[in-house]
Amino acid sequence: MARIVQKFGGTSVGDIDRIKNVARRVKATFDAGNQVAVVVSAMSGVTNQLVDYCRQVAPNYDFREYDAVVSTGEQVTTGLLALALQELGVPSRSWMGWQVPIRSDSAHSKARIEGIDTASLITEMAAGFVPVVAGFQGVGPGNRITTLGRGGSDTSAVALAAALHADRCDIYTDVDGVYTADPRIVARPRKLDKITYEEMLEMASLGAKVLQTRSVEMAMKHRVLVQVLSSFTDSPGTLVCDEEEIVERQIVSGITYSRDEAKITLIKVSDRPGVAAAIFGPLADANINVDMIVQNISEDGSKTDLTFTVAKTDLEQAIAVISGKKDDIGYVRLVPDPNVVKVSVIGVGMRSHAGIAQTMFTTLAERSINIKVISTSEIKVSVLIAEEYTELALRALHSAYGLDAA
Amino acid sequence: MARIVQKFGGTSVGDIDRIKNVARRVKATFDAGNQVAVVVSAMSGVTNQLVDYCRQVAPNYDFREYDAVVSTGEQVTTGLLALALQELGVPSRSWMGWQVPIRSDSAHSKARIEGIDTASLITEMAAGFVPVVAGFQGVGPGNRITTLGRGGSDTSAVALAAALHADRCDIYTDVDGVYTADPRIVARPRKLDKITYEEMLEMASLGAKVLQTRSVEMAMKHRVLVQVLSSFTDSPGTLVCDEEEIVERQIVSGITYSRDEAKITLIKVSDRPGVAAAIFGPLADANINVDMIVQNISEDGSKTDLTFTVAKTDLEQAIAVISGKKDDIGYVRLVPDPNVVKVSVIGVGMRSHAGIAQTMFTTLAERSINIKVISTSEIKVSVLIAEEYTELALRALHSAYGLDAA
Repeated sequence: MARIVQKFGGTSVGDIDRIKNVARRVKATFDAGNQVAVVVSAMSGVTNQLVDYCRQVAPNYDFREYDAVVSTGEQVTTGLLALALQELGVPSRSWMGWQVPIRSDSAHSKARIEGIDTASLITEMAAGFVPVVAGFQGVGPGNRITTLGRGGSDTSAVALAAALHADRCDIYTDVDGVYTADPRIVARPRKLDKITYEEMLEMASLGAKVLQTRSVEMAMKHRVLVQVLSSFTDSPGTLVCDEEEIVERQIVSGITYSRDEAKITLIKVSDRPGVAAAIFGPLADANINVDMIVQNISEDGSKTDLTFTVAKTDLEQAIAVISGKKDDIGYVRLVPDPNVVKVSVIGVGMRSHAGIAQTMFTTLAERSINIKVISTSEIKVSVLIAEEYTELALRALHSAYGLDAA
Repeated sequence: MARIVQKFGGTSVGDIDRIKNVARRVKATFDAGNQVAVVVSAMSGVTNQLVDYCRQVAPNYDFREYDAVVSTGEQVTTGLLALALQELGVPSRSWMGWQVPIRSDSAHSKARIEGIDTASLITEMAAGFVPVVAGFQGVGPGNRITTLGRGGSDTSAVALAAALHADRCDIYTDVDGVYTADPRIVARPRKLDKITYEEMLEMASLGAKVLQTRSVEMAMKHRVLVQVLSSFTDSPGTLVCDEEEIVERQIVSGITYSRDEAKITLIKVSDRPGVAAAIFGPLADANINVDMIVQNISEDGSKTDLTFTVAKTDLEQAIAVISGKKDDIGYVRLVPDPNVVKVSVIGVGMRSHAGIAQTMFTTLAERSINIKVISTSEIKVSVLIAEEYTELALRALHSAYGLDAA
């Protein structure tokens, strides 16, 4: 007998028939003799509708009230799934965040879970019940309802699995696992049987949308075995686990891309101590995250070009901030470029294999794709290229690293 | 300065524009220097949709999960109205039933309020906030969400007004007050400036849908001054109050009708002790309420005809129950009749004026309308007639009692 947390996303509970289908899956796991706790998202589309209501009423809405409104989506599916399980003869009840309770901080709309009191759930599971817990929500100081940010139900599920010391956390979604690359672009992607936490974290951060980044961080921290799989098929999915558990390691596990980047180049910046602080200090003050940074070699030792990337949605504001500090910084011209994409090659095998980056640069050069910025970490290489080359670069790299499925 | 509870029903908060309109009304009362607490229903149509979801998932749903699901409708409007008030510069926050808390018993889907802890709300109002409280919901034993039954938001509002010792409870609805008769049937109904609790209770019980019966009972018990008015106009509405507060009393205040009745006649019942218990005991056991009962005079002292009414929705079941007990009861034939309507004349003036019933009987007789059953109380006379005469009877009675507006 194992203790398993199962999480079902918005498309998996998108209508009444799908909720009934989810109930059948839960029942199968339960009937096999396991203890099961379920976490659900809102029916797909519902959260967007509720957010839209808030925006219509108050464009700059109070996040506390926003949380009260949008958390109802999960409350509905939680109750409905408990009903569907009962209908199949599985004893079940719904649990809202405040009922468990799932305690969070007060950062409304993007709260962090501080603790989960599992006593009631454990008693209930021992008594043969399947608790259905509302994802995405918690209860903050003063008994106010909080939400965990978009995709927060993944985090709810992993946090619950950690708190319950569950043997596994199954994340049911609309794809049947983690692929070496986006199947909409690459013709023969391969589904990974296993992937390490570190790789999954890079994949999630670098554009793969299959799991929310924070949920992977939490799984890694608490060593929660996570399985990503589809609620629409019976194929086994991808296991996110410790490196030791993966026998046949790939050197490269996946290739991701992100179109959310924009590039800013400052031409002829004075090459003096403190200039980086003069640029990135004001951006940080404006809550603008800077991702990649590259400083070109200064020809005469006095002036240099400096390039960095920000989220595409922050580009306008970043231009305004930098332009406002032009005299402090001392540059000649600001050149923005929103038409870029960040392509990343990810794999723990890089730690022990040289030449991974070289393969990437050669492959892109052979297609005459110019690399604008490079950044690397222990297990990934990212390059910024012109957006129009996205598909070409992904397909070429996927083949170059031998990732194409047979 | 007064303390006022304002309640807005489903049509009053039916869409975003209407919610903004409600916020303007609340602001006006608040700006006039009053302490205001608001109670809201779900947006019209939402509760029906949620009930429908439950039915689709589980035709015989667990009322605890039903309550978790349907209570979300009020949660959404509560948050949205708090946002709309903030947007107008009125400090406000939402309160769910469990947050106040509004404590109820465990009779899920038709729970009764047992107590309201008003300390937080009173502190908040004193600090210049307008609390927006979710109607229709409470929290029962074990921290489970409960709902109070359809129309329960009226009860929430009156209970809150009683607990807060409010000076008045304003119930905003889609009609602008209580009328002497249904304006869809009677051409010149008159809006009542004031009506007694007793009359309003009879009106609500006997078919007028303007207020939920239980909310009137509660207002009467706690002597809460209730005003019924429209959120779409600025006319003053109808005050529900003590008899002493009404200077110019009408003899008859209103005429109602209910098509929810069905009649059953048992032909040639043995006229012996215990026969009534043999009939009505099994009906009570089956949770079927019997309203009017009339026993005809037995010709030879051994057999009699017995007529009674039940809710139209209970008719089939009542027939089955009685038929199953035919031998115990001893009757020759059961004659059901669903095509009846109960017409009632209501007024506290009946206590001191004779001839009210006589006027009713004469008026109906002049139109050749046959009375099938009669029942009376201190302040009302009800008759059962064939449904096809509904409009004719109402119009004739409305004129006969001098209720037509000038």
